[in-house]
Amino acid sequence: MTRPRIELICVGTELLTGKVNTHTSAIGQRLGEIGLTLAQGRTVGDGPELMEEVFSESLQRSDVVISAGGLGPTFDDLSRDVWSKVTRRPLTFHPGLLEAIKERFRQRKIKMPPQNRRQAFLLNRADEIPNEFGTAPGQFVMVGRKLVILLPGPSRELFPMLDQYVMPRLQQLYSRQYSVHKSFHVFGLPESEVDRMIRPIVTNILKVKGCSITHSILASQLIITVRYRVDGASPATVFEAANFLEKKIRTKLGQRIYGKNGDTLEGVVGSLLRSKRKSLAVAESCTGGLVAKLITDQPGASDYFYEGVVSYSNRSKLTRLGVKSETLQRFGAVSEKVAREMAAGLKRRVGVDYALSVTGIAGPTGATPQKPIGLIYIGLAGVQRTVVKKFYFTGDRSWIRQRAALTALDLLRKELLRPQ
Amino acid sequence: MTRPRIELICVGTELLTGKVNTHTSAIGQRLGEIGLTLAQGRTVGDGPELMEEVFSESLQRSDVVISAGGLGPTFDDLSRDVWSKVTRRPLTFHPGLLEAIKERFRQRKIKMPPQNRRQAFLLNRADEIPNEFGTAPGQFVMVGRKLVILLPGPSRELFPMLDQYVMPRLQQLYSRQYSVHKSFHVFGLPESEVDRMIRPIVTNILKVKGCSITHSILASQLIITVRYRVDGASPATVFEAANFLEKKIRTKLGQRIYGKNGDTLEGVVGSLLRSKRKSLAVAESCTGGLVAKLITDQPGASDYFYEGVVSYSNRSKLTRLGVKSETLQRFGAVSEKVAREMAAGLKRRVGVDYALSVTGIAGPTGATPQKPIGLIYIGLAGVQRTVVKKFYFTGDRSWIRQRAALTALDLLRKELLRPQ
Repeated sequence: MTRPRIELICVGTELLTGKVNTHTSAIGQRLGEIGLTLAQGRTVGDGPELMEEVFSESLQRSDVVISAGGLGPTFDDLSRDVWSKVTRRPLTFHPGLLEAIKERFRQRKIKMPPQNRRQAFLLNRADEIPNEFGTAPGQFVMVGRKLVILLPGPSRELFPMLDQYVMPRLQQLYSRQYSVHKSFHVFGLPESEVDRMIRPIVTNILKVKGCSITHSILASQLIITVRYRVDGASPATVFEAANFLEKKIRTKLGQRIYGKNGDTLEGVVGSLLRSKRKSLAVAESCTGGLVAKLITDQPGASDYFYEGVVSYSNRSKLTRLGVKSETLQRFGAVSEKVAREMAAGLKRRVGVDYALSVTGIAGPTGATPQKPIGLIYIGLAGVQRTVVKKFYFTGDRSWIRQRAALTALDLLRKELLRPQ
Repeated sequence: MTRPRIELICVGTELLTGKVNTHTSAIGQRLGEIGLTLAQGRTVGDGPELMEEVFSESLQRSDVVISAGGLGPTFDDLSRDVWSKVTRRPLTFHPGLLEAIKERFRQRKIKMPPQNRRQAFLLNRADEIPNEFGTAPGQFVMVGRKLVILLPGPSRELFPMLDQYVMPRLQQLYSRQYSVHKSFHVFGLPESEVDRMIRPIVTNILKVKGCSITHSILASQLIITVRYRVDGASPATVFEAANFLEKKIRTKLGQRIYGKNGDTLEGVVGSLLRSKRKSLAVAESCTGGLVAKLITDQPGASDYFYEGVVSYSNRSKLTRLGVKSETLQRFGAVSEKVAREMAAGLKRRVGVDYALSVTGIAGPTGATPQKPIGLIYIGLAGVQRTVVKKFYFTGDRSWIRQRAALTALDLLRKELLRPQ
């Protein structure tokens, strides 16, 4: 089987007038993981004439067309209708789909608005792609030997459908090589530094046991991800080569690798706390609840997370955390001493094994010549000791808060990994 | 002058394999500001065959083609060469450009690598678009009556060139219309319901004072945005028509409109608290710090936000919030009574004007037959009264938490808007 030509069409006027399209890069990446390539990504507004032009062109010259968006209930959601016209397949009503849509609304104690009925129509002879997170089902449509895939636009609906139904189908249809993917996540190093450390390993081992290796380094939200793919003719050699490479990379990066295959830092910290049967509380000033929010993103976090205090006033630091009034007056709220008392005070009051504290200047206001924007103290009162670390972070308010919160989690992770 | 058909082509394999393309939305937005529309955005990798196909197609059917990327010095930067082929204009060497490129390297105390010489070539009869932030000049190329615009890919080079040279040129060539854009944000209604309410207004008033009106409805992260654009021949009529429409829409949607032009719910709540000189504290269980995080996303939130408590254990609810032990035992942590005591207890202890509380089952664990996933109680202890509302939200853990947090903020917003 030769490689199929695949095009992606994202539908939505908003994507041409201010909303960033993140689908093209993410879908392209997923296709790459199974050895397929996106020939072109196209974005078109909600107008039926332009949609028809773009759909027809893509269908004519491609083997697979993925169409994302325009499956909603409103008048300007036209993908169903335009694909129906382009493929000359009438839309067919499916009573079962309508029931499922009504049921979603019933669960929310809302009556289904009449226009949602449009979502119960599929192109003739299309297969439904179930949508667990929304009312718009996707569709697989074979048009001769070509495959058209209709998906809804919202990420939280599209990506589960892509992973669960679309990628397996494409892999089954077009992929004949064996391949293994691995990815590692690193926190606390710049992308260029990770590149410098990894590149000699990967380039010196371009071929292991006849397998070919491709790699990439991707920075996103302060997390650096090293990904590589090993392709070869048999599962055994591919597996062996991938493991050999993993060992080399792990030896080089050590504990700076916090996880793999999509692990989050908060997830890894949660798993460590659970497996070691340790409890946690957090006291936050400048991060304003972000550390607690990340920790409680994990289902079942109540097993190890007892309490968070967002002390956004001096009074709260005094009464809730037991910071001393004289410490606040002498050193100010953003200081090594206050970070230490926040962590130690909270640990004592809540009776947990670990208490984290964060205090700093996230900006854009609140800076002084001595305490610039980006100055952050992170405290950790632990089983054996209390440590405070000082950081200077760059970026805007949201970036500094994000960096401070993740750095706090990483500090806790490393402490949990120390031999006790 | 009729409206030109404009297409944007972004060149770069990385945009199809993991890097997010932010140019399309940003350029589309800028065009919209001068009354022009992007007919299509296309993304293509660095391969010359596909580039040629895409460039030719776009040139054939459009009046303006903007091509971004592929002007760098390396072997895979092929936009110059492919455009030369497609337009049949040979590349011409410009000694002055080479001098300018060499000068940039001299300033950085680096010798110019030989491959940068490629950047001193323009298509025959092209006008240079100066690039202050990089070595790759842009180009304006008139091909018959069509305009091709070559720009470099990096944002910090592209956008200054766009704003200083490209947009003024396009405005001069094509813009004869005046236009006004407005957008409103609604929380707490499904997209289809907003559509049902808005559509009769917009379709009945398709023409006001000779202006044409286009509108769209966009759902993103639980916020529904209604956007419309009014185009007409004079600023006065456009302005008048836009205001007339705004009045109609505001009358229909009332307080369900929480803001406009990119306002966030947390920003609006913060502004209301600040202008009314009211203070706030929040007690969170299932949202785990998300409400506090959203509130403190606002710079200067310490003016009105005093404290957040993330009570992830019963003990924390007892000791920190003053929930009664018998209330917890009799009704459970997820109950109307506990939500009420959390809000009232926190308000009393911190001494604020308003205290919000959230308790519920975010899932996937923790549900019982009586208390399903998605059951959330939100309490608000205010200046005059304490209210608790019960909700059933659908979706996964992250979605339920997001919905609960925003609903809590919206409840506070409406309370702040009540006549005191």
